[in-house]
Amino acid sequence: MSRQLSIAAFMMRHGHHVAAWRHPQTDLATNPFKVFRQQVRSAEAACLDAVFFADSLALTGNIPSLEPLTLLSALAASTEKIGLIGTATTTYNEPYTVARQFASLDQLSDGRAGWNLVTSDNAAEAANFGRDQHVGHAERYARAREFHQVVTGLWDSWQDGALVNDKAGGVLADPARIRKLDHRGAHFAVAGPLNVTRSPQGRPVVVQAGGSEAGRDLAAATAEVVFTAQPTLAGAQDFYRDIKRRVADKGRHPESLKIMPGLFAVVGASQAEADDKFGMLQCLIEPKAGLALLGRMIGNFDLSGYPLDGPLPELPQTEDGQRSRQQLLTNLAQGENLSIRQLYARIAGGRGHFTVIGTAQTVADQMQAWFEGGAADGFNFMAPALPDGLDDFLALVVPELQRRGLFRTAYTGTTLREHLGLQE
Amino acid sequence: MSRQLSIAAFMMRHGHHVAAWRHPQTDLATNPFKVFRQQVRSAEAACLDAVFFADSLALTGNIPSLEPLTLLSALAASTEKIGLIGTATTTYNEPYTVARQFASLDQLSDGRAGWNLVTSDNAAEAANFGRDQHVGHAERYARAREFHQVVTGLWDSWQDGALVNDKAGGVLADPARIRKLDHRGAHFAVAGPLNVTRSPQGRPVVVQAGGSEAGRDLAAATAEVVFTAQPTLAGAQDFYRDIKRRVADKGRHPESLKIMPGLFAVVGASQAEADDKFGMLQCLIEPKAGLALLGRMIGNFDLSGYPLDGPLPELPQTEDGQRSRQQLLTNLAQGENLSIRQLYARIAGGRGHFTVIGTAQTVADQMQAWFEGGAADGFNFMAPALPDGLDDFLALVVPELQRRGLFRTAYTGTTLREHLGLQE
Repeated sequence: MSRQLSIAAFMMRHGHHVAAWRHPQTDLATNPFKVFRQQVRSAEAACLDAVFFADSLALTGNIPSLEPLTLLSALAASTEKIGLIGTATTTYNEPYTVARQFASLDQLSDGRAGWNLVTSDNAAEAANFGRDQHVGHAERYARAREFHQVVTGLWDSWQDGALVNDKAGGVLADPARIRKLDHRGAHFAVAGPLNVTRSPQGRPVVVQAGGSEAGRDLAAATAEVVFTAQPTLAGAQDFYRDIKRRVADKGRHPESLKIMPGLFAVVGASQAEADDKFGMLQCLIEPKAGLALLGRMIGNFDLSGYPLDGPLPELPQTEDGQRSRQQLLTNLAQGENLSIRQLYARIAGGRGHFTVIGTAQTVADQMQAWFEGGAADGFNFMAPALPDGLDDFLALVVPELQRRGLFRTAYTGTTLREHLGLQE
Repeated sequence: MSRQLSIAAFMMRHGHHVAAWRHPQTDLATNPFKVFRQQVRSAEAACLDAVFFADSLALTGNIPSLEPLTLLSALAASTEKIGLIGTATTTYNEPYTVARQFASLDQLSDGRAGWNLVTSDNAAEAANFGRDQHVGHAERYARAREFHQVVTGLWDSWQDGALVNDKAGGVLADPARIRKLDHRGAHFAVAGPLNVTRSPQGRPVVVQAGGSEAGRDLAAATAEVVFTAQPTLAGAQDFYRDIKRRVADKGRHPESLKIMPGLFAVVGASQAEADDKFGMLQCLIEPKAGLALLGRMIGNFDLSGYPLDGPLPELPQTEDGQRSRQQLLTNLAQGENLSIRQLYARIAGGRGHFTVIGTAQTVADQMQAWFEGGAADGFNFMAPALPDGLDDFLALVVPELQRRGLFRTAYTGTTLREHLGLQE
C-alpha cells in the first residue's frame, strides 16, 4: 500500500472559529460530553486516526470546557477504534500522576491513548498554581524533558508478561518483570514502579507542538507526532525538513515521527457555498471577542484602548512562548497594512494555521500537495464550527481522499500506534 | 416515606478478600474496565446509590489498578443513574486540578460525581512524589482543610445561570456571575475562576474516611458522606454519636452528613453455603500475601522473619495514619491469643470492617439493626470476590431490604446528591 495520510480531528467545544458558538447549528443546550460523543463517533465512522483535545489550566474568554483526561475516558467507553489524544502540561503536574492517568486511559481504551506533552507559558495558568510569574522558557523545557523521561520510564516499569495470573500457583504478577525506576534528577525523584500494567500498544503515543528551538529539539528527541501551525506550503516544507533532520540526528527512523500541521478548512459543494459559510462566521465576530483573541495571540497584550480601524501598535516583545506567533502576526499586519479589525478577522478562523476555503476537490488537492510535497505526513483538522464543519469534512473531503488512495477506508489495526503506522 | 438506607458498592479489582483473585469465578483475562462496567451496571440495576473506588499512588502487593478519575469517567459514559465516587489525595495533588477533574466528571455524568478526600500517609507513595519522608499528620490535615476550601471555592466560581448562551446578543457567559477566587493561604495561592461550569448537583459530593481526631474534625466540618471501618455495633454507635455531635457543633444539619460503615458480607442460600463460600476463600490465602496484608495494616512492619504460628511480636508504634488500626489488631491478637497466621486469616476478608457471613435474612437483619440502632445511615458494601460476591448481595440482600421498606426500588432523583438525600 502506498504511503497514507494520517488525519486527526482537533476538537473544540464549539469549533475553531472565534464566533463558532454563535453559528445557528452549534448545540449549546445539550450536555457537552454528549455533543462530543456524537462528533467523535462520526470521526470514527470515517476512520480518522484520532481525535485531539487541547487544554488550558485557566478560564479563557469565559468559554468553559471539560477536562481532557476525564472527557477522553468517557469517549473511550463510547467508541471502539479511534485514537484519543489529550493534552497534559509538564509545568504544573507530577509525572507519576500523568503517567498513571494516560496509562489508565490506554488500558480502558485497549491501546488508543496519546499524550500531547506541553509546557505552560501563560500568567493566568501560573496564578492557578501558586506562581506569581510563569516559569521561564529554558527551565520549562528542562523540566519537560525530565518529565518525559520519568513518564516513559514508569510506562516501561511493567515488562510484557509481568502479569502472570496463575491462580493455581498463587502468583498474580512476576516481581522479576516489574522494575523500580529510582529516578533522581534535577526536578523529580520518583521511585516507581507504576501501579498500572504495560500499555496494550507498548506505550501511549507521545505528541508535541513546540515551534521554538527548544521545542523542536525536544520533539525530535521524544515526540512521535508533531502538531504545528504552518500558514504556507514553503514554511511547512522548511519546518518538515528541519524536524526530520533533527530526528535523523538523534538516530531515530524518520517514520518514527509524524508531522501533522493544523488544517482549518471550510468545505462547500461549490466555491461560492464555501465562501458563504466562512462569510457567515466572519459576520458573527464580536469586536470584543476578536480583540481578545488577537491580544492573546500577540503575547497577552491588551488592545482594547486602540482604534479598531487603526494600525496594530508597537508591541513589547513577549517573554512567553508566543514569540514566534507575535512576529508572524506583526509581519502580516505590516506587510499588508491591515487594521486591527482586519487582522483579527484574518485569524478568527485558522488562527495562523493552514487555511483552505473551497470544494472537497480543492481541499483534497491542497492536502495532497502538502503531503506529496514534503510538508506534512498528515493533518490535524480544525472544524470552523461544530457539528457542521466536521460533518462537511467527513462527508465530502475524506471520501475524495479515499478515492485518491491517500486515506484508509477501514481500520487495519486496533491501537493508535497502529493507525499512525509509527516505525520504531 | 420512612428513612431509607444508603448503599454504595466499594469496588476493588478482584474483590476485597486478599485471595479474591484466585477465586474460580474472578475474571483475570478481560480488560478490567469491561469487568467493572458489567458489575457497575448490575449495581445500577439494583438502584444502589453509588460505586466507590479507593486509590493508591504506589504499587501495593504487585496488584495493578486503573486510575479512579479515568475509570469513573469511562463508567459515567456506560451508566445513567448510579453515583460515581472516586478518591483523590490532597497530599500530592494541586487543588485546581482536582477541582477541574471532579467538576468535569460531574458534568459528563449529569451530576453523579463524588470526591473521596483523603490524605496520604505511606512511604511508598511519598517516594513517587519526590519526598523521602511522608508528610506529618498535622501538616497533612492542615493542607487537606485548605485544599477543600480551595476546591469548593472553585466549584462555586460559576454561579447558577452564568452560562447565558445568547447567540443573537453575542453573550456566551455573564462575567458578573463568574467569580475569581483569589485564594492566598498557607499552602496554596489560587486565582480562579474554574474553567468548568457549575455542577448539575450544585457541587460534587464530598466523602471522607478519617478516623483520627483530626480526621473526625475535618469530616464534621466538610464531609457529606463518611466511610468508616467499624467491626462492632457498639463501636459503630460510639463513632456515629461522636460524628453527629461534631456536625451539630459546626451548626450543620445532622442529615447533611451520612455515615456509612464498610460491610463485608458473604451471602449464601443457607448459613452452611455462606460458610463454605468464605471457607473456600480462606483456603486460598497464600502465607506471603497474608503476611504482607497484615504487615501493611499494622504500620508497614515486615513480619517475614517471624514464625507463622508464633505470636505477633512487640511493634514499634507507627507514626503514620494507621495508629488506630495497629492498636485494634494488637488488642485482637492479645485478647484472643492469636498466632500471626490466625491474625491474618481474621483480617483477610473484611480487614477490620463489619463482617457478616450468612443468609440474606441474616445480613439484612444486621444491616437493619445498625441502621435503626444509631450506628449507620447506610453501608459501603465490600464484596468478598467479584463478580460473585456482588451478584449475591444484589440478588439476595437488596430485595430483602426492599421488602422491608428500607431501600428504594427505583431511583427517584438523577444526581448522587439526590440519591443520598443530603440536607443542606
